[in-house]
Amino acid sequence: MEKLKQKILNDGRVLSENVLKVDSFLNHQVDPFLMKEIGDEFANRFKNQVITKVLTLESSGIAPALMTALALGVPLIFARKKNSLTLQNQDVVTAEVFSYTKQETNTIAVSKKFVNANDKVLIIDDFLANGEASLGLIRLIEQTGAEVIGVGIVIEKSFQIGREKLENAGYHVESLARILSLKNQQIQFVTEEVLQR
Amino acid sequence: MEKLKQKILNDGRVLSENVLKVDSFLNHQVDPFLMKEIGDEFANRFKNQVITKVLTLESSGIAPALMTALALGVPLIFARKKNSLTLQNQDVVTAEVFSYTKQETNTIAVSKKFVNANDKVLIIDDFLANGEASLGLIRLIEQTGAEVIGVGIVIEKSFQIGREKLENAGYHVESLARILSLKNQQIQFVTEEVLQR
Repeated sequence: MEKLKQKILNDGRVLSENVLKVDSFLNHQVDPFLMKEIGDEFANRFKNQVITKVLTLESSGIAPALMTALALGVPLIFARKKNSLTLQNQDVVTAEVFSYTKQETNTIAVSKKFVNANDKVLIIDDFLANGEASLGLIRLIEQTGAEVIGVGIVIEKSFQIGREKLENAGYHVESLARILSLKNQQIQFVTEEVLQR
Repeated sequence: MEKLKQKILNDGRVLSENVLKVDSFLNHQVDPFLMKEIGDEFANRFKNQVITKVLTLESSGIAPALMTALALGVPLIFARKKNSLTLQNQDVVTAEVFSYTKQETNTIAVSKKFVNANDKVLIIDDFLANGEASLGLIRLIEQTGAEVIGVGIVIEKSFQIGREKLENAGYHVESLARILSLKNQQIQFVTEEVLQR
């Protein structure tokens, strides 16, 4: 998605060979017009499949996932990172997700009321790195008997193992920007020329 | 906002005299069309004021706030509930917010990069009860020198003290649904007839 790549080149900041900071338009400050285009793009990429629900993980996934749900005309569900008071008394499925960024394990949960065996679920997340969050969301869905249609990622760090893990497990992954490398303070996209920053 | 009230009556669940659960369309599963209408309604209610940023608090505020930002054509910022690895090394303003629901105090933070003294900020949140979250967001904004234009609330529990605290402090509050009482398993709106569930 060309506009997203340009935004990453213009506003993203390379903090290290592994860390790209996009808090000016995606995960702290959010560009609502870009999110709208991202939602339309995901809907387009999965247009030939039946999708009944969009699932993401709070918090940074919510904005792109909401716009995807709007474009597809289906509800969004955001998995909660720990049992809040209003979730803990109901019937939930849970999974453990390790965050390499924060070096902590979170329990994520979805109420069984909102995902059932008839659902066909598209997972949307802001980043794909090691695949832990996406795999956690997949484990949630599969406990309900619902089908995972695919995984839509805004920014994929293709030099990490997440896509390979998801594809090896048989899941369809669509990433709107695929980053090959962050070495030498350069953002290099997969199949794209290296663009000097 | 009539459609929101109908949704609350149809899908909300009264768990106690203080707790209304709306996790089927607002804070776990999210209805994207309703969020779009909510965003348009907030933009309409504040249409005579200059607004440069929308601010909310992760996670449940993000969906209505994103749609408000889209309708207003300005960026959304969501305050983070604790310092993540990617926030902690930058210049942030912070405030303490006590959650009565969860019985815990969270530090919330916004990067100074994204709110400055020239900004005119509209706060959006899903619920107004005791006003702690809104007042925390106001304290964040005012530390940056920016101006608080007003506070837009999806569901106000008018029998709690939040609105009074905000208005006494001089802030303009617009709530799309104002709940007078949850007694006897009935949802009663302010200025509306009591509707038997």
